[in-house]
Amino acid sequence: MSSVIEMRHGSGTLAMQQLIEQIFLPAFDNPYLNQKNDQACFAMKAGRLAMSTDAYVIAPLFFPGGDIGSLAVHGTINDLAMAGATPLYLAASFILEEGFLITDLQRIVASMARAAKKSKVVIVTGDTKVVERGKGDGVFITTTGIGIVPDGISLSSDRAKVGDKIIVSGFVGDHGIAIMSLRHNLHFHTLIQSDSVALDDLVQAMIKAVPDIHCLRDPTRGGVATTLNELAQSSKIGMVIEEAKIPIKIAVASACELLGLDALYVANEGKLIAICAQQDAAYLLTIMQAHLLGRDAQIIGTVVSDQRCLVQLKTRFGGMRIIDSLAGELLPRIC
Amino acid sequence: MSSVIEMRHGSGTLAMQQLIEQIFLPAFDNPYLNQKNDQACFAMKAGRLAMSTDAYVIAPLFFPGGDIGSLAVHGTINDLAMAGATPLYLAASFILEEGFLITDLQRIVASMARAAKKSKVVIVTGDTKVVERGKGDGVFITTTGIGIVPDGISLSSDRAKVGDKIIVSGFVGDHGIAIMSLRHNLHFHTLIQSDSVALDDLVQAMIKAVPDIHCLRDPTRGGVATTLNELAQSSKIGMVIEEAKIPIKIAVASACELLGLDALYVANEGKLIAICAQQDAAYLLTIMQAHLLGRDAQIIGTVVSDQRCLVQLKTRFGGMRIIDSLAGELLPRIC
Repeated sequence: MSSVIEMRHGSGTLAMQQLIEQIFLPAFDNPYLNQKNDQACFAMKAGRLAMSTDAYVIAPLFFPGGDIGSLAVHGTINDLAMAGATPLYLAASFILEEGFLITDLQRIVASMARAAKKSKVVIVTGDTKVVERGKGDGVFITTTGIGIVPDGISLSSDRAKVGDKIIVSGFVGDHGIAIMSLRHNLHFHTLIQSDSVALDDLVQAMIKAVPDIHCLRDPTRGGVATTLNELAQSSKIGMVIEEAKIPIKIAVASACELLGLDALYVANEGKLIAICAQQDAAYLLTIMQAHLLGRDAQIIGTVVSDQRCLVQLKTRFGGMRIIDSLAGELLPRIC
Repeated sequence: MSSVIEMRHGSGTLAMQQLIEQIFLPAFDNPYLNQKNDQACFAMKAGRLAMSTDAYVIAPLFFPGGDIGSLAVHGTINDLAMAGATPLYLAASFILEEGFLITDLQRIVASMARAAKKSKVVIVTGDTKVVERGKGDGVFITTTGIGIVPDGISLSSDRAKVGDKIIVSGFVGDHGIAIMSLRHNLHFHTLIQSDSVALDDLVQAMIKAVPDIHCLRDPTRGGVATTLNELAQSSKIGMVIEEAKIPIKIAVASACELLGLDALYVANEGKLIAICAQQDAAYLLTIMQAHLLGRDAQIIGTVVSDQRCLVQLKTRFGGMRIIDSLAGELLPRIC
């Protein structure tokens, strides 16, 4: 096999078959994919399904803490987990640029396989296309997942109620700052790694303890600020969050200072925002803090009545300022 | 809103929200999407599900008989239909290039919506990313579908048996030739249109009449020749097909002559290959010919015993030649 992707790898030819047989099938090894049909079939019990899709176009493809492959698996698992779903099956589509290194593709595919295995998710079907040099950027991956939502779980962005508490599962801004540092060739005393991780196990622990969590969402593009605004608008409520309560690593805060960024707008790939009734908040926080992926969780604010659906920040100095959705372009191709 | 896609349309910002609210939500209008969660949830009865994904990178984006939008919906519906599944839900992810015309995006999205509606499929969730100018090519779309397979249906590429009959549902090569003619600016007496269409309704009629069809596959990239070879290898059998029986339009045959192509290797987007037991073949053909999308169906050959899994063509002149899988690069970015 050649060492780089060629146009013929996307033309339904023997070269494409070889690529599939030598790269994808061994890495994702499972009976669905091995059947080499254009679709996978599997039995499902009756219930509520969740389905989610995301395209991943992150640049650079490899970064401290992950790569486009692990990110593409974690990201879609997380979107399913935010509905309380147990992720089960993934489909993966690849758009490869002519000239892309096969060894890089292998590394990415291996990383996807590891990430999927860790969450017991099976990559059951896929597709590969090739575009000419200069019409793509190495590799773009779209993953689509389906999962099953346990009975009695009803998470939705429009369920936040006045008096509810807002919890963040850990330090914010790590992913975006890791990518920006790499792009700008910034070196800090402490290496800032992406927080890219699958949150399904944390979510399962959370909904087991408090089945009536109202909203869950992972603050990816646009960061915590944009996610809170979206939740506020969907639920037609306001929020007051406390700056002092928001967990931000010193290295991330310093990098934000240097880059002129606000960590609240920086993307995360392994964090979630949970909104639950006030009486459930302390217990939910305990459960989260008992989990490796939630040990730095904090209650950061409260849902309030506000027809304007504003998210307000109580600053360390006691002032209040409005935290809007991200308006301009902050961090292109962060995921 | 600006008239072209800008980087901020992909950054989780207000601009992205506006794009979603002004372009995608009105076109795909349904309660799942309107909830604006990062995933869709829906109830499913117990049964066998089919799942399929495809990336669409076709160039040019608009062509006689369709566009990337209708193609992306038809293609994934067809991959589900080839398992006998009734397609139900689609996820759509868009990778947009900076500078892409919003009016073109609207046209494509409208075309997707029409195609989905026609097959009663709902586009329940989606994603939008933007890449810099020169890192993409207008728009790439990945669609992923799920559908439910009726009880008793078991279609798979490894089920062809010696003595089975091979049926093609209509004229071959239209899609590929339509695209190539457009690229090479060839004008024929008769306009060659893409055959892009959803085959789910035809398949439903077929499996209702003959539940025990062994294999169904749509001969897209690599054409009929490559699809037959894949089926032969999966089923570990050989095939003999008759050149005189293969339906090819005169305009397509002429274009193939001119372009130096073999219609058997040219992509189709609205045709299928069915393999069934000999005793079912005549009835299945009648059922297919009674359907608008199968009226030109023909029995083109027979499954034979062959350890080498060769596909052989009996020519019009009585000779035999081996029809291999497509080896080189024939038609890049045909879907």
